[in-house]
Amino acid sequence: MPELRQNRITGHWVIIAENRGGRPRDFVVQQTVRNAGECPFCEGHEELTPGEVFAIRDNVTQPDTPGWRVRVIPNKYPATTMASEGSNLAPAGRPGTSNALSQSLTPGTTLHEVIIESPRHVLSLAALDDAQAADILAAYRTRIAQLGISHPQSNIILFKNSGPAAGATLAHLHSQLVASTLLTADQRARLAAFGAQPGYTVAHPETCSACEMVAQLPDALVVAHSPHFIAFCPHAARFPYETWVLPLRHEAHYDRLDPETLPELASLFRGVLVKLERILQVPAYNYILHTAPFDTARADHYHWHIEILPRITTLGGFELGTGCYINPLSPEHAAEELRGA
Amino acid sequence: MPELRQNRITGHWVIIAENRGGRPRDFVVQQTVRNAGECPFCEGHEELTPGEVFAIRDNVTQPDTPGWRVRVIPNKYPATTMASEGSNLAPAGRPGTSNALSQSLTPGTTLHEVIIESPRHVLSLAALDDAQAADILAAYRTRIAQLGISHPQSNIILFKNSGPAAGATLAHLHSQLVASTLLTADQRARLAAFGAQPGYTVAHPETCSACEMVAQLPDALVVAHSPHFIAFCPHAARFPYETWVLPLRHEAHYDRLDPETLPELASLFRGVLVKLERILQVPAYNYILHTAPFDTARADHYHWHIEILPRITTLGGFELGTGCYINPLSPEHAAEELRGA
Repeated sequence: MPELRQNRITGHWVIIAENRGGRPRDFVVQQTVRNAGECPFCEGHEELTPGEVFAIRDNVTQPDTPGWRVRVIPNKYPATTMASEGSNLAPAGRPGTSNALSQSLTPGTTLHEVIIESPRHVLSLAALDDAQAADILAAYRTRIAQLGISHPQSNIILFKNSGPAAGATLAHLHSQLVASTLLTADQRARLAAFGAQPGYTVAHPETCSACEMVAQLPDALVVAHSPHFIAFCPHAARFPYETWVLPLRHEAHYDRLDPETLPELASLFRGVLVKLERILQVPAYNYILHTAPFDTARADHYHWHIEILPRITTLGGFELGTGCYINPLSPEHAAEELRGA
Repeated sequence: MPELRQNRITGHWVIIAENRGGRPRDFVVQQTVRNAGECPFCEGHEELTPGEVFAIRDNVTQPDTPGWRVRVIPNKYPATTMASEGSNLAPAGRPGTSNALSQSLTPGTTLHEVIIESPRHVLSLAALDDAQAADILAAYRTRIAQLGISHPQSNIILFKNSGPAAGATLAHLHSQLVASTLLTADQRARLAAFGAQPGYTVAHPETCSACEMVAQLPDALVVAHSPHFIAFCPHAARFPYETWVLPLRHEAHYDRLDPETLPELASLFRGVLVKLERILQVPAYNYILHTAPFDTARADHYHWHIEILPRITTLGGFELGTGCYINPLSPEHAAEELRGA
């Protein structure tokens, strides 16, 4: 029988409805990847992109030339523009029109970046080794820390779209980073939720909602763990095989993560993606790194986390109309499959 | 330059970013429809579905036999189950577990129905005539009114998934209806928003947010109108060609719509879908009928509306992580194209 569950951190309701798996299907959807001879993200094609703002390089090589392992560039087609620093966190940007139709803002400086995660034309993190995965996670950490200094009023969302069903347009392995002074209603609710756990006090941030979630986590939901990190399927998973990765010890800011633990995180995180790709043939998924807004006075109760969201289901009118997700695979079954993969 | 807009009714932030339209694309996605010889929704195949709960029929024909024009059946693969009547509107159902992981509810009676909108194997509303479209809208009205009597504690969401990119699994023209005693955070916010318009008073519900939105609507956003209804692209459209259809006069409950205006609504509504299909080759879209919860004491400020959401963009990590939508086509340009189609 379908079961309604609500995630206490995201606030999302989900319906776990395994009976939906057997529905008849009229449609066949096929995706093909074109020849990417002119891929702008490949080593040697640096002139096809805007100039890099950060890179991890093997040797003393020049910016925007070969020799990099991870390369961060401004998005050539930015989805967002950011208010000048000094404005309040909300509303973002300069006021535009505001009436019964909607509120409208015209923000300033653009900040939408692309993290190119391999110099080779690789489509999947699973195709890399743990050392390259650690480089990628280190690049996230350094670039976010840099933005915390240059844009202290902003918050960061870092995400990967892998496969067209997850919103990707280019195949070459990459993630994106958006800095914004706007906190959406979803982001505000998430920020508040960490401190809303009964018993939470500022003096003991390890009583936050995520810390409690991990403390009470049944073994059946655990996918993998290591000394400092855990991967699990959340009880109110929105998507089949949805998996969260987070630090066992309370930590609000991803960019303050102890760099010595990066290889351990890389191994655990890449391990989950490898398992996912073993189970699902086409690697269509998003992952999203949620980290606290830089203005830490408001955010020490936050607990950074990475959500891996496989996109084998399609959001329909029910989800768009209610914000409630239908998930045809229970997280208990998903975690069991992932552990065995 | 990208522009941030917020819809005052849904609370969604959107980024109108027409510069995103020119991005290079590595993927080609193709969809095919299989032979539907065994389509369970076709006339003559009534024995393949659960027994009908309502139908519009030409003559005196028996339930679950040919002779219907619109047929409503329980969903064979229900996504939801509903609490027994008598429970409070929230939380829904009987309490299950509730801890740091999530809240969990185990509801009772199932209520997830399918509205089969043509006895023939038609894939699109545009392929029908206005009279059949009026029958469909009349079936929505009657079935919702029936549920208001049998399930007065619930609220209704009625939606269509058309095409696999919009979440459809069967091609034969149909919509779905879910009755639930749960109001999600999105639904609560929407319910509250109608009465949150400055100047709104209970004595004058025609000052609700939707009434004000229509009163202040610039011509550039209007797609079409008729004496009692209007179709327009909302200023903070989440999707390219997103169009809302609603009554010009304040009306909370779709099921109290004057039946004499149904042909007029059908003509306007079908007209918009025909225009959409002229512009977009593959008809992947959702539409969602939002109507007030039956418990009208709480909901007279609601203004029923239909949202048509074309699915030519894909929700990625940014949308899933922030609840903010990136729309690469401004609603001003969309409305202009739709008016000319």
